[in-house]
Amino acid sequence: MNHQGTLGVAVIGTGRMGADHVRRIDTVISGARVAAVVDIDAERAEKVARGIEGCTPHTDLAAAMADPAVDAVLIASPGPAHEAALLAAFERDLPVLCEKPLTPDAASALRVLRAEQALGHRRTQVGFMRRYDAGYLRLKSLLDAGTYGRTLMLHNKHRNPATPPGFTDAMLVNDSVVHEIDTTRWLLGEEITAVRVLRPVPSGNAPDGLGDPSLFLFETSAGQVVDTELFQNCGFGYQVVCEAVCERGTARTGDDHGLVVNSEGHWGGSITPGFVERFADAYDRQVQRWVDATRRGEVEGPSCWDGYAAAAVCEAGVRAQLTGDRVAVELVERPALYS
Amino acid sequence: MNHQGTLGVAVIGTGRMGADHVRRIDTVISGARVAAVVDIDAERAEKVARGIEGCTPHTDLAAAMADPAVDAVLIASPGPAHEAALLAAFERDLPVLCEKPLTPDAASALRVLRAEQALGHRRTQVGFMRRYDAGYLRLKSLLDAGTYGRTLMLHNKHRNPATPPGFTDAMLVNDSVVHEIDTTRWLLGEEITAVRVLRPVPSGNAPDGLGDPSLFLFETSAGQVVDTELFQNCGFGYQVVCEAVCERGTARTGDDHGLVVNSEGHWGGSITPGFVERFADAYDRQVQRWVDATRRGEVEGPSCWDGYAAAAVCEAGVRAQLTGDRVAVELVERPALYS
Amino acid sequence: MNHQGTLGVAVIGTGRMGADHVRRIDTVISGARVAAVVDIDAERAEKVARGIEGCTPHTDLAAAMADPAVDAVLIASPGPAHEAALLAAFERDLPVLCEKPLTPDAASALRVLRAEQALGHRRTQVGFMRRYDAGYLRLKSLLDAGTYGRTLMLHNKHRNPATPPGFTDAMLVNDSVVHEIDTTRWLLGEEITAVRVLRPVPSGNAPDGLGDPSLFLFETSAGQVVDTELFQNCGFGYQVVCEAVCERGTARTGDDHGLVVNSEGHWGGSITPGFVERFADAYDRQVQRWVDATRRGEVEGPSCWDGYAAAAVCEAGVRAQLTGDRVAVELVERPALYS
Amino acid sequence: MNHQGTLGVAVIGTGRMGADHVRRIDTVISGARVAAVVDIDAERAEKVARGIEGCTPHTDLAAAMADPAVDAVLIASPGPAHEAALLAAFERDLPVLCEKPLTPDAASALRVLRAEQALGHRRTQVGFMRRYDAGYLRLKSLLDAGTYGRTLMLHNKHRNPATPPGFTDAMLVNDSVVHEIDTTRWLLGEEITAVRVLRPVPSGNAPDGLGDPSLFLFETSAGQVVDTELFQNCGFGYQVVCEAVCERGTARTGDDHGLVVNSEGHWGGSITPGFVERFADAYDRQVQRWVDATRRGEVEGPSCWDGYAAAAVCEAGVRAQLTGDRVAVELVERPALYS
Repeated sequence: MNHQGTLGVAVIGTGRMGADHVRRIDTVISGARVAAVVDIDAERAEKVARGIEGCTPHTDLAAAMADPAVDAVLIASPGPAHEAALLAAFERDLPVLCEKPLTPDAASALRVLRAEQALGHRRTQVGFMRRYDAGYLRLKSLLDAGTYGRTLMLHNKHRNPATPPGFTDAMLVNDSVVHEIDTTRWLLGEEITAVRVLRPVPSGNAPDGLGDPSLFLFETSAGQVVDTELFQNCGFGYQVVCEAVCERGTARTGDDHGLVVNSEGHWGGSITPGFVERFADAYDRQVQRWVDATRRGEVEGPSCWDGYAAAAVCEAGVRAQLTGDRVAVELVERPALYS
Repeated sequence: MNHQGTLGVAVIGTGRMGADHVRRIDTVISGARVAAVVDIDAERAEKVARGIEGCTPHTDLAAAMADPAVDAVLIASPGPAHEAALLAAFERDLPVLCEKPLTPDAASALRVLRAEQALGHRRTQVGFMRRYDAGYLRLKSLLDAGTYGRTLMLHNKHRNPATPPGFTDAMLVNDSVVHEIDTTRWLLGEEITAVRVLRPVPSGNAPDGLGDPSLFLFETSAGQVVDTELFQNCGFGYQVVCEAVCERGTARTGDDHGLVVNSEGHWGGSITPGFVERFADAYDRQVQRWVDATRRGEVEGPSCWDGYAAAAVCEAGVRAQLTGDRVAVELVERPALYS
Repeated sequence: MNHQGTLGVAVIGTGRMGADHVRRIDTVISGARVAAVVDIDAERAEKVARGIEGCTPHTDLAAAMADPAVDAVLIASPGPAHEAALLAAFERDLPVLCEKPLTPDAASALRVLRAEQALGHRRTQVGFMRRYDAGYLRLKSLLDAGTYGRTLMLHNKHRNPATPPGFTDAMLVNDSVVHEIDTTRWLLGEEITAVRVLRPVPSGNAPDGLGDPSLFLFETSAGQVVDTELFQNCGFGYQVVCEAVCERGTARTGDDHGLVVNSEGHWGGSITPGFVERFADAYDRQVQRWVDATRRGEVEGPSCWDGYAAAAVCEAGVRAQLTGDRVAVELVERPALYS
Repeated sequence: MNHQGTLGVAVIGTGRMGADHVRRIDTVISGARVAAVVDIDAERAEKVARGIEGCTPHTDLAAAMADPAVDAVLIASPGPAHEAALLAAFERDLPVLCEKPLTPDAASALRVLRAEQALGHRRTQVGFMRRYDAGYLRLKSLLDAGTYGRTLMLHNKHRNPATPPGFTDAMLVNDSVVHEIDTTRWLLGEEITAVRVLRPVPSGNAPDGLGDPSLFLFETSAGQVVDTELFQNCGFGYQVVCEAVCERGTARTGDDHGLVVNSEGHWGGSITPGFVERFADAYDRQVQRWVDATRRGEVEGPSCWDGYAAAAVCEAGVRAQLTGDRVAVELVERPALYS
């Protein structure tokens, strides 16, 4: 499949993330257009489709994917709906960009992985957009070059002003630390083999019952150690910092060092208020790369394997949260398709 | 004029800047397409047009502008060719994005301004792309808010690794300091009323006969003082820094504080290697904003007045370079169209 | 005891640290003089004493302490010799500044503590000189003020260019992490209740058999979590960083942000080469404060309790290194003298 | 003269600076003691002397210098009284540390210089204490090493929260910029040959009639250009920054990068509140070096020539303030004694 013309994308899910991707494809990304939107809420789908020339609203997945204007699928529905959408796309052999998580647990992620494996070629890119962030990309290329020797540790900080209502301990793992799970695996090129969670006394600003902040500890297949301060109710801003400790040097990305102000006895700058501001460019770049690769008939970026491994580590993380123990991560053997 | 469909752009000039704008419109910007390219070198125009669907190559300005597929004009030819292209576009009442400088001298800039004034509405946006840089935008909004009181001084640093062969003292003003001339006028909302140039002993790394580095001093209509270190053969990278000194605080943008590395007794980061890396996003944003405004039938951004004022200050700057004196800047009265 | 004149100090041990303290008292500190030096190596003692007016060399502890010119004792002999020197000083009821560690293990530290307790008043200040470092002092006062809410975590980095020959895993705890043990207890005002050690694959630059770097994890009596990256063969310099994570903000001290240089595509500064450069002022301030307090007849600063608690945590740390387990720290009840 | 024992210092003037130097010699500096204090206000002299063992109060300069306990003189009286005190010290051939300015104008400074020249050897160190500041010392050694090529420009910022009542335009030169005059001459090893002053509209926070901030521009004998932002009512803190622009790099000292705090959407640190905090160590080091050199029978540090040159540039600076013109600096030929 080689799309010489504009790529027709079906966007599955028209909630917050879905609507944002519709906007991005329509007004930011070149080489693609929104050919269809799918939502079980017919009214919402119609409302989103109305503003876009040549965009058909659907409530049925299969119908959308059978639409001849649809060349590719972007899945932005809630996690539990991902598996069905992925399998439907695989049936039509359509390229997919699937928002993280691939699916909400390791068992379903493995089913998806097996289904793609049965196709005999990769069709899925998982939406771990940090891999497209300029700072992470520079860090990755520095580590890959080995300029400072092997990487021995990573120190991560993942700070968010406040959690939305209803946020749970498990969501700290599945929605938040999942990003550090992926960046750890990607930056180091190793699987995570064990997880520990240390839980200090919670902040008075964390909602009742939420163990925030916490310290996640990963061990990797190459014996590296990774710590992540997760603080989702820090109040002061959104900060995602990663420092790699190598044999002869360290490198850190993610400090907020843009505009520097001197005033009233203090110097410093603003902290990024949220993930939209921090990673908008990464989202754009992610979708653009996917459009470009798709038009070339190729698949790049995070794969089903990456989605599956993240799901498995998340499950270990949730168990480590509950037990306070070191929890080993178990993975099936990596299929050749993903090597 | 309201373009509901994709905006057809004629790009005038297919040299380095022109080719880059063609690429940007074709692959980065949404809502626009390259409908025509114009170059006196027919072969070069054809070569550029060949890769783009529906793009007609031209050697004649008037023919290109008469092309019904052309809705707007982007002028990226050498400065001396700008006046003719602008007047041709005005004749057809086409919206124009004109690379800086508007024209190479104040007299021709004033002729262009009078021609647009005769149209009775603005058609021209001048390519002072720093106004679209994220750092400058944050600085501008901080100063406009008056958080730290009135702005009293600006300290600029404009550093470039090396000048290309044939660079002259006048080019230091017209090609380099012209950016600080525009950012000064834009950030402060005032005209520049006088210019001085101090010229230290030149660096041994500057080409023979080029007075680099130098210190430019501007006074504004509100009595502010602005200094600019211009160092175009600094060797170590590309650095554009602006610090505003207000009554109760200062704010600085442009330091290179991205990825921070510790290694071999030193800490720090990379310096942006050149203006492409530093301002690529600003260029993209500039063209996108222009496309968007054009499709709405509007004109925004730097105007002919801004282009004319910059040309007038450049002329004063060149005289200040030559004489070592304070040179006053003289401007015609500002037409209502630009107020 | 109130020394209106100059304080006569006996310095026990004239090795590297002892000789440095002799120099400090003789030429940096006001209000004190070196009245005696003690070393089992008579020749070394005499050599050091020779350059200082009115300084008597001794090989016998008791004789030195009986010297009427001696008003106070500074112990800088090797750790195993501390207990005897402390007990001798207690017998004469002399004020003591004792280099860390108080003694090499918790049992002997507890004996010293009991002996001082029997005196009925504090006579000992332990040489945890980080408590006198300007950066740590500012951090401490920020945390004590509670400006950003309660402190929930500390992230420490303790990096050293290289270990001397013969450095062992136990020395990583007793000589290096012991500083973070003390700063943790001092900054947080809590005891450490448990220790874990995570050991990544060692750096190729660490001596064979030394598990460097490593990650130490402390829990405190108030449920705070503290991590310390210990990297004693990092090669690039000496860096001691402490970041406190509070409920509404974080504060970090110890980055090397002095002289900033732009050159050859990089910006940044030098990293402090070693602990002497980093903490010279803290050492001076420590001794000066001790001299001043002593002349006023008072005892301040880290006490025997602090020395004992550090020894107990070190022992837990060594066990945690060996076992990979969480090791709880056990302390005797805190005597009233130290509350 | 070689002082094997403690150096007996007569402190001339017991106002704010004098009392601070008395305290410093008495309690900070080793190797010196305050043998005498001199003040025309007998009561104030007696009050200061009372707390110090062996310190005699005087109202008469000559009597104080004849005191056999006096080995050296520290002049901290108001500037107009310096000449008489210096000449009295020269008569007794006593070493002198003279607070800046050497004298208030170039003519009297030249008389002092001639008097010292007549002695045939240097006796005077001028109190330009920035030469002892750690940051400036590192910058100086970097420039002297020529690592980044020749120095072409300096950018200085000299910011102070507020001026005391009665501060005048001339004091901006003589009390404030005089420090940049000295650091320029010292860092570059060149004389200042011309001065310009640009005066923006004054800050609303400057006292009526005071032209603050202002921009001073120096040219040097080697053709270097130096700019200094002088802002003595900036409100936000005390900041003394110096950036040297060399042929292949720049180096900056004086940013406030100690403790870094994240809180409420901002990151950054405190700005030093005043010159005492910023330069206390430099003052201590200055006096200690002088004591040490004096005890060795030597004279080091800023000389009468440095004091005279600063006075001459200040006079040009005041004229440049008044006229707005470039004012050339004229110096007598440099005597061999100061080469």
